[in-house]
Amino acid sequence: MASSILTSSKFSPFAPPSLKSSLFLSPASLHFPSSKLPSFPSFPSKSCSKTFLISSSLTPNPPSPSRRPPFIPNHIPDPNYVRVFDTTLRDGEQSPGATMTSKEKLDIARQLAKLGVDIIEAGFPAASKDDFEAVKTIAKEVGNAVDEDGYVPVICGLSRCNEKDIKAAWEAVKYAKRPRIHTFIATSGIHMEYKLRKSKAEVVDIARSMVRFARSLGCNDVEFSPEDAGRSDREFLYEILGEVIKAGATTLNIPDTVGINLPSEFGQLIADIKANTPGIENVIISTHCQNDLGLSTANTLAGACAGARQVEVTINGIGERAGNASLEEVVMALKCRGEHVLGGLYTGINTRHIVMASKMVEEYTGLHVQPHKAIVGANAFAHESGIHQDGMLKHKGTYEIISPEDIGLERSNEAGIVLGKLSGRHALSDRLKELGYELDQEQLGNIFWRFKAVAEQKKRVTDADLIALVSDEVFQPEVVWKLHDLQVTCGTLGLSTATVKLISADGEEHVACSVGTGPVDSAYKAVDLITKEAVTLLEYSLIAVTEGIDAIATTRVLIRTEKSHMSTHALTGEITHRTFSGTGAGMDIVVSSVKAYIGAINKMLGFKEQIPTKGSAERTTISA
Amino acid sequence: MASSILTSSKFSPFAPPSLKSSLFLSPASLHFPSSKLPSFPSFPSKSCSKTFLISSSLTPNPPSPSRRPPFIPNHIPDPNYVRVFDTTLRDGEQSPGATMTSKEKLDIARQLAKLGVDIIEAGFPAASKDDFEAVKTIAKEVGNAVDEDGYVPVICGLSRCNEKDIKAAWEAVKYAKRPRIHTFIATSGIHMEYKLRKSKAEVVDIARSMVRFARSLGCNDVEFSPEDAGRSDREFLYEILGEVIKAGATTLNIPDTVGINLPSEFGQLIADIKANTPGIENVIISTHCQNDLGLSTANTLAGACAGARQVEVTINGIGERAGNASLEEVVMALKCRGEHVLGGLYTGINTRHIVMASKMVEEYTGLHVQPHKAIVGANAFAHESGIHQDGMLKHKGTYEIISPEDIGLERSNEAGIVLGKLSGRHALSDRLKELGYELDQEQLGNIFWRFKAVAEQKKRVTDADLIALVSDEVFQPEVVWKLHDLQVTCGTLGLSTATVKLISADGEEHVACSVGTGPVDSAYKAVDLITKEAVTLLEYSLIAVTEGIDAIATTRVLIRTEKSHMSTHALTGEITHRTFSGTGAGMDIVVSSVKAYIGAINKMLGFKEQIPTKGSAERTTISA
Repeated sequence: MASSILTSSKFSPFAPPSLKSSLFLSPASLHFPSSKLPSFPSFPSKSCSKTFLISSSLTPNPPSPSRRPPFIPNHIPDPNYVRVFDTTLRDGEQSPGATMTSKEKLDIARQLAKLGVDIIEAGFPAASKDDFEAVKTIAKEVGNAVDEDGYVPVICGLSRCNEKDIKAAWEAVKYAKRPRIHTFIATSGIHMEYKLRKSKAEVVDIARSMVRFARSLGCNDVEFSPEDAGRSDREFLYEILGEVIKAGATTLNIPDTVGINLPSEFGQLIADIKANTPGIENVIISTHCQNDLGLSTANTLAGACAGARQVEVTINGIGERAGNASLEEVVMALKCRGEHVLGGLYTGINTRHIVMASKMVEEYTGLHVQPHKAIVGANAFAHESGIHQDGMLKHKGTYEIISPEDIGLERSNEAGIVLGKLSGRHALSDRLKELGYELDQEQLGNIFWRFKAVAEQKKRVTDADLIALVSDEVFQPEVVWKLHDLQVTCGTLGLSTATVKLISADGEEHVACSVGTGPVDSAYKAVDLITKEAVTLLEYSLIAVTEGIDAIATTRVLIRTEKSHMSTHALTGEITHRTFSGTGAGMDIVVSSVKAYIGAINKMLGFKEQIPTKGSAERTTISA
Repeated sequence: MASSILTSSKFSPFAPPSLKSSLFLSPASLHFPSSKLPSFPSFPSKSCSKTFLISSSLTPNPPSPSRRPPFIPNHIPDPNYVRVFDTTLRDGEQSPGATMTSKEKLDIARQLAKLGVDIIEAGFPAASKDDFEAVKTIAKEVGNAVDEDGYVPVICGLSRCNEKDIKAAWEAVKYAKRPRIHTFIATSGIHMEYKLRKSKAEVVDIARSMVRFARSLGCNDVEFSPEDAGRSDREFLYEILGEVIKAGATTLNIPDTVGINLPSEFGQLIADIKANTPGIENVIISTHCQNDLGLSTANTLAGACAGARQVEVTINGIGERAGNASLEEVVMALKCRGEHVLGGLYTGINTRHIVMASKMVEEYTGLHVQPHKAIVGANAFAHESGIHQDGMLKHKGTYEIISPEDIGLERSNEAGIVLGKLSGRHALSDRLKELGYELDQEQLGNIFWRFKAVAEQKKRVTDADLIALVSDEVFQPEVVWKLHDLQVTCGTLGLSTATVKLISADGEEHVACSVGTGPVDSAYKAVDLITKEAVTLLEYSLIAVTEGIDAIATTRVLIRTEKSHMSTHALTGEITHRTFSGTGAGMDIVVSSVKAYIGAINKMLGFKEQIPTKGSAERTTISA
């Protein structure tokens, strides 16, 4: 992909900041004085209502991407610019079942670079060898793809507060043009007592010396997080944050780890930290809001209003438990209302790549968003189907505040159906682009032949069919086993029987048959007889869509092996089993089910064997 | 069910309000003066951090349900009590594909009464004859089931601002002990110009006279909403709201119809209305926040902080586009933080019925929540599977702010599996109760026999299996067609062939066979040959879960007929086609697919023929 080409020779920082922004260049004046915070909620209501009357679309022109200020780790020359730190690949991947391969992570990192996120948290390198390699690959490829405007994302690796984790993080990210180490330690009473079993003084000492250690490795961009800050004692927070600033931290990330804060509280927490932490004017404050009460987006915005200039988010809001603040919600709220309600705050995100990023993350993690998910849900822009559009509804602003095109979703023809068997490669490519997919020529070629095969059988190939084909073709792991033939008999009489023929990587044919409790069970058992992998099926789901069951059905499975593929959990330090998802598409649901199962097995086989660090032991013997 | 028994003789309003609340009894002092609003965000941070240190579970004891103040339409004797207005059956049902039958709506209304919601918006009676009948049935049954504490929900019907709609609403709700008419008209510039094509003066005149008309019918509880208030001119809002108060409105609902407001703005809007609307001290202010930017929960809380004492919400946050504020998020935020952060605000919701309500709404609407949905998502309380629980994690408060038991979800045994073929009816009943299902004896009996059949084939019957069985047994429409036998052959060779035998309502057997592009397609075609219903399949999905494909698979389909089943859309006035969902469970996915399809056809056949009102014509000739 174009964005992965090395273009470091083109690196050209921006022209000097304008007069206006140079007024803010001295570190001490970087942020608003806390008495002049962008008001929340005391922003004058008059100007709001005026806005409503003047602008009917309410989607102001986004700031031109060229407004993105040059990157300095601990300093943003424009006081209104908010950095977007995406942690889909780290916090998001911690969701149950969301394990991704290195290749999938690289794909997502490239998409995040297209979006223009400022920082990509690429993983937790100490978790396992594979996590390490994934971060390193992203640092080398995505972390060096400087575009013509000089933009290249910071590549960040997470580490607990110990030398081994920090070394691993540095060894993984150091290949990037802009490497960052992110280290954290818990600071709430409950966490220090029950998890760390350490005193406040010990925790401060560890934090200070580990930030210093990270800097000593040659890393000039170190982020520090006091875990569970939302429940930590304020005075203790000011103290530990002040110490890590002295030790060389460049960004202080304030996590509401358990998602308990209300927006007013979280905004106050950021404002208090900004007002009371010694040296805070020399660093960037960041938010990290979990969604346990459904308030993560609001908390993130409240944090930005109170002075945070980095927001930690994930695509689709995935993450442990109820997930994190979602990139698309935070970014679109800032885009739609930043100018008028949030004192001019803006991000550097190119929102037209949101839909593709959302789909890619859904596919790779197997975590589907609900139909009523804000911004990217299937219904987000839909009114009840079958509605008769009249003149009133033609004025889109009546019920629509964001245009679908803004996030990369082209409004499809009202008739809905555009492609048939006479459609050419160009028409296919155009339609896929409208749907948010940008494919390279080889991918397009493969899709095209499958499209033709479907079009032979179906009069009209719908958007949903196309999306299923893309998922099946583009988002697949490398092939180890391949389905050749399948034959099944089943029904209410029981005794479902399946025969499968698989081709191995060396081209050999293998045939097996089995009975089972249903057609898929019998087919999976036959596959197991051939592959001889001891896997457990954790989840199975199937989606078919639009106008008739002759649509293409997409199946997704999630599997686990018992003995291998371990990983270390960043927060709890526990060893966990990895799980692997696979998808398959086809017009026969039994066939697509088998393809998905083989896909998951291939993904598992393509995953390097894991040598996890022993998290539990380390928790009580953190080096310092 | 117990809650549907008429117990009006037991109706006994509470003892006189306590001294503290009687201080607030004069209408003028009902609310905090606006200068003393519960502060947002200026609540002293000191008291917040103190809270964090004192309480590790952070789930304070909820106010006892007996604290629910007596119901007076325009007045709440306790200034901290927040009424919960659930609109799952009206706004929620407007989601694409979420059509419910009258029986399903009644089930949900009963569950909402168990939750203790203060007001149930049961539908939009003018939409169609079936909508009218559903609201009437709920008014008669649920609206008269007064419990021993004197609680009975208000039953509310929506109407546009015209006499015909309002009459229909009154005819439907008047059977309830506490009936309410909710009428609305748009007040934003863009809506008045493009949708209503009316001047401000005309709109005020219509609103005033229609509220007066509603009162003249004998309804002493009338709610008025200025649609798109979030984008309406402030001064105009004060004027129209003041006029409807004079005309007799008891609750003023302020909708952010397009979901564009940030919490600060929405809170300010409520505060401004409270400060500037003549007569506002004599009515209740309500919030209605759409979720287009992911901020509906935060906006709702901001509204409550600013003086709103009714919140409009839906179960699971369903609704058009990105949906509404979700009941579970708003209620749990108030329960967890109301005491400490929101100045003592509380609701009368019995949160232990949340899980069952959430599952019921998922089943009936076909709108599944994402795994990371706050409070009710599958992952909301889960850490990565396979995690080794050690001493640290045993202190649940480390990463958990809500206990699953609080919302009716019992923490299952770590081993996860509790039932097998030797388990008795009592064990089954207990486990189902732990999972949040409260079934009557007949339902339990039916489930038990199916449970035994599954246990014969599977060593361990998992929670997921049980949930699938309950869904298949309890959440089914009345039977018109029933599947007797099915036989299918399919595979990569194509030419899938299915034979089905169905039993009609009169007990007659019908057999047909068909070929198709896959096993489900061929089986559905065979069903179509028998039922002779011209239906279009809109969506098809299948979920199987936990440990092996020999788990029970649940299939869901969504169908539509072309010629009938019309309904009028409340906001746009457009005529829409209804869609019908069906689910089926079984160990063979083809069998469960056919059961789901037949279920959807049965649901459609059980639905009364629709005679929609002509919305388009009325929009320009509103009676006044």
